[in-house]
Amino acid sequence: MEATIFSGNDILQMETRIRAAFMNSLSGFKSASLIGSIDGKGNSNLAIFSSVIHLGSNPALIGFINRPDSTSRHTLENILETKCFTINHVNKEIYKKAHQTSARYAKEVSEFDATGLTPQFHTLLQAPYVKESHIKYGLEFAEKHELKINGTVLIIGRVLEVIIPDNCLLPHGAIDIEKAETITISGLDCYHTTDLLSRLTYAKPGILPEEII
Amino acid sequence: MEATIFSGNDILQMETRIRAAFMNSLSGFKSASLIGSIDGKGNSNLAIFSSVIHLGSNPALIGFINRPDSTSRHTLENILETKCFTINHVNKEIYKKAHQTSARYAKEVSEFDATGLTPQFHTLLQAPYVKESHIKYGLEFAEKHELKINGTVLIIGRVLEVIIPDNCLLPHGAIDIEKAETITISGLDCYHTTDLLSRLTYAKPGILPEEII
Repeated sequence: MEATIFSGNDILQMETRIRAAFMNSLSGFKSASLIGSIDGKGNSNLAIFSSVIHLGSNPALIGFINRPDSTSRHTLENILETKCFTINHVNKEIYKKAHQTSARYAKEVSEFDATGLTPQFHTLLQAPYVKESHIKYGLEFAEKHELKINGTVLIIGRVLEVIIPDNCLLPHGAIDIEKAETITISGLDCYHTTDLLSRLTYAKPGILPEEII
Repeated sequence: MEATIFSGNDILQMETRIRAAFMNSLSGFKSASLIGSIDGKGNSNLAIFSSVIHLGSNPALIGFINRPDSTSRHTLENILETKCFTINHVNKEIYKKAHQTSARYAKEVSEFDATGLTPQFHTLLQAPYVKESHIKYGLEFAEKHELKINGTVLIIGRVLEVIIPDNCLLPHGAIDIEKAETITISGLDCYHTTDLLSRLTYAKPGILPEEII
């Protein structure tokens, strides 16, 4: 393939929205997640994030990046106030409603009401789940890291509970997120379904990986 | 769908490999990236990561999570020594070789030699690119954050240059990573191709998003 090289200066010179689209595509395919939160008065918030990331299995930790100057600032404020949140996988039935949560609603407006997604409450934590999401988990706030280099914040949560469809847990422990219709995001606004190529064996020196599935 | 709820204690009680597979599936679909690095003596290293994440567009910053006690520790040591690295999208032609870089090779063994991937050097930075990767970018080390909660490290790099196939840049600035055959990972060892559902319009309150593509 013929290729073009963009220098750091080329990227700097791009128009703001062009650069945001370019840079958001560069890191590869991303998690499509709705984060549910609630303030101390009981006002729910729901926002789509593509920055959810696995941090560790024991303790069970998940993180995400928050931009305090963006529409996602209400999520951050709520989590610091009530110390909990939910993460809900976006599936192909709800991705347009999920995308709509990124609109700049006032703080007193619940994105559940605005988009038609249904809040679902469990006893273990205050924050609402998304009923229409098939894979979802509740977290307690654990740590906040300010990334001084650009003012973003890494929020880390400890997993309190996980809800999974019965037919989506594989014998080796993995969750079949493709079967649960979870989708993936590229860039700022592209949504993709997936097709499994294969599951590969654990890699060892001198032995080529084999396809398990 | 009938669902099962796993408590935090259920997760804690899982066998180590089962828990790792479970937790690594939970965050959703992940970036499939090969990170190229080099030590001060010129020894190249290549390792697959599923934790690459967009941090910001201006300045152009990308991060990834490194586990210092894992096979990826050579990547961390090299980046701290020579202050640069490359990130190379995994595509469907090379995913088995990419997976094989996760085997526990000795530090003096280059994963390029061990897997048959081809190192490609540019003048702007010492670290090697992967010739067979279609989308790749070079970074200078910018910041390291130790996440004390579990001993992992967030490495942040500033993007110095980006290499993209000519036919994969879209008019609005995004890179068509699906056309470039970039794939995505779920869990520890499942590789998936993607199919675009649609690109949606910028979300505004009171207007439902429309399909641009």
